[in-house]
Amino acid sequence: MADFTKAGRQFELRVPGFRAAGAAAGIKKNGKKDLAVIVSDSPASVAGVFTTNTVKAAPVLLDMKRIRKGLASGLIVNSGNANACTGKEGMRNAEAMADMAERALGLKKGSVLVASTGVIGVPLPIEKVEKGLPFLSRSLGYEGLGPAAEAMMTTDAFPKKTVMKTKLGGVEITLAGIAKGAGMICPDMATMLAFFFTDARIKAPALSKALKAAVDRSFNSIIVDNDTSTNDTVLAFANGAGNGGEIKEGTREFDSFAGLLTAASTELAHMIVKDGEGATRFVEIEVSGAASEHDARKAARTVAESYLCKTAFFGGDPNWGRIIAAIGRAGVKMREERTIVSFNGVQVVLKGLDTGREKEAARAMKKKELLVLVDIGAGRGAARVWTTDLTYEYVKINSAYRT
Amino acid sequence: MADFTKAGRQFELRVPGFRAAGAAAGIKKNGKKDLAVIVSDSPASVAGVFTTNTVKAAPVLLDMKRIRKGLASGLIVNSGNANACTGKEGMRNAEAMADMAERALGLKKGSVLVASTGVIGVPLPIEKVEKGLPFLSRSLGYEGLGPAAEAMMTTDAFPKKTVMKTKLGGVEITLAGIAKGAGMICPDMATMLAFFFTDARIKAPALSKALKAAVDRSFNSIIVDNDTSTNDTVLAFANGAGNGGEIKEGTREFDSFAGLLTAASTELAHMIVKDGEGATRFVEIEVSGAASEHDARKAARTVAESYLCKTAFFGGDPNWGRIIAAIGRAGVKMREERTIVSFNGVQVVLKGLDTGREKEAARAMKKKELLVLVDIGAGRGAARVWTTDLTYEYVKINSAYRT
Repeated sequence: MADFTKAGRQFELRVPGFRAAGAAAGIKKNGKKDLAVIVSDSPASVAGVFTTNTVKAAPVLLDMKRIRKGLASGLIVNSGNANACTGKEGMRNAEAMADMAERALGLKKGSVLVASTGVIGVPLPIEKVEKGLPFLSRSLGYEGLGPAAEAMMTTDAFPKKTVMKTKLGGVEITLAGIAKGAGMICPDMATMLAFFFTDARIKAPALSKALKAAVDRSFNSIIVDNDTSTNDTVLAFANGAGNGGEIKEGTREFDSFAGLLTAASTELAHMIVKDGEGATRFVEIEVSGAASEHDARKAARTVAESYLCKTAFFGGDPNWGRIIAAIGRAGVKMREERTIVSFNGVQVVLKGLDTGREKEAARAMKKKELLVLVDIGAGRGAARVWTTDLTYEYVKINSAYRT
Repeated sequence: MADFTKAGRQFELRVPGFRAAGAAAGIKKNGKKDLAVIVSDSPASVAGVFTTNTVKAAPVLLDMKRIRKGLASGLIVNSGNANACTGKEGMRNAEAMADMAERALGLKKGSVLVASTGVIGVPLPIEKVEKGLPFLSRSLGYEGLGPAAEAMMTTDAFPKKTVMKTKLGGVEITLAGIAKGAGMICPDMATMLAFFFTDARIKAPALSKALKAAVDRSFNSIIVDNDTSTNDTVLAFANGAGNGGEIKEGTREFDSFAGLLTAASTELAHMIVKDGEGATRFVEIEVSGAASEHDARKAARTVAESYLCKTAFFGGDPNWGRIIAAIGRAGVKMREERTIVSFNGVQVVLKGLDTGREKEAARAMKKKELLVLVDIGAGRGAARVWTTDLTYEYVKINSAYRT
């Protein structure tokens, strides 16, 4: 991978041709920012990846329809209300929200996408969206992605944002991403939203392909708990405002662009994992030696979702029996007699048997970051996922009766 | 179902033709009972259901092979060591354990089954089994199932045992069951073992069919956490010591027998759920209106395995958004606009929308037992599962470094 990952944070959070704003419209009761708009100076190619939950919030259903055109001019996002489980009224409100944004910003009908995050089952106060739009419209600016990221926050401890640049065919392109999500926290608000903006020139099908690959290796590889929100949405907008030529599939430029998008997605995904209020450790689980990448991912996910593994990570207990038992129930091919397990570099299992190095491993686990490597000896497939530990604090936060 | 479920506890724990004993052989460091044998006076029909974990402990592999004959004379069980992840030596030890029991008890070679539960990855101290057998052999008695149940305990707070009687074709049969398991506790020991003994006359294939149905509706319908042990084993022995005729598939007698086995299994399964040290609530989740029973079970399991639902159960929070989001990601057909959710009889969702009765539901949830009913409006399939809440205590117990 290129060197953009480290350099990324030094750039200003702005992308040629994209204006944004974020403000408090009164949807949140605490007076914090809760409404954002992002607009492209010219219609942008657009691609999206949405929640796989059967129950999809109204804005998700609307975006899934609108995105088929492959072009969009903007996005309106609110926090404080998810507009989920709100029936037909919810669908009308999602459409009204897009309409209002299009009128306020002078955009074509049907060209604005919508995202919502917050409480489930409560009607969206659409009149607050309407009242907030004139101010937002006046505030739009090329430095507005930061305030927009803040307006997406629910229980997030910090806004998630990144910007990266790379050269494609000698011409610099910029990619910015903003996200919200802190899965360990208040469940109704555990939605993950991530939006990318680039001045690269790329058509919607190619953009979609790059986005899907990036999401698989980043947002779909983090497991905070095992729940999927009704509102999860990832969108990418490419407006071609830069000087570069079109990025076509099957070229080196496409691979570089897809790599950039994956790096930005991974950075935001890690921020989401690290924002778990209840979490004390950031855990990377890497499974190799699987019969396929699919198997490796399944095995790694099963460990990351295991109650017993996650409590052992919290306790700093090199409990390899839990790891092997979890992978054993993942339903993947595994050669027990070849299995290797290590915690932060200390091998505790070799050829499926205890190495007697548990005390050493326990010492190595006393860090904020934990790397669990497992080789299951059945092939060459590998995958990694990121997760957190399961803590008292997680139970406390999530069992508190909502107020 | 017949009336045996309530009457069951009044009978003495003994079954004609089965002798048993349990004693301390020094496998456990705390001096508690850790070795049991159960012997049938004549070879018994036998059936088994085993862990679906890819990683299977040596005794499980041995039993899976031995059970194919459909006949067995006895069973030897130890606690304190799971003989799992112990390689070839583990397999040799499991076979040696059976051999020793056969010799000590004067039984035919290959006629004894084996079960182990306890720590993973540590070689079984087979010499302690050998030393313990003479005393066990002398102690065998018809009232020995109680001590045998105690010798199977690991972190169980109490031994699990039940005995039921019913009349089949005018002749009384007895069925006893003993089990161990307390899933919320120390993971290496979270194995579930359950053994049934009856004086009914039934051939192995029919016994196997009845046992599989019973296990599906009982042990496979409890979810304490989402982990499956490498050692889970359920066995049923039927020695025909009673005066009844053979129970054949497709008869009323078979249905009664299968019902009895299901009732006994369900009773033991509920005891296992209730024995979760960390648990404060016993939760029954019933999903109806699914396209199939399979879908209903999948939906109910997804709720029971959800971190967010389980913490809400702990907090007594009627958080129906979490229930709907969990079922939504279960991958089953669901009609959101017809969905109904109730907590302990208080409907919080009707036609997919909030009924405004959350405060009432929160009051209704202030009980040790919680019934969650969900109708997903897509068909006539129904299923129920039993689980517990996710508590501080669970995290505490499971994150403690093993000593």
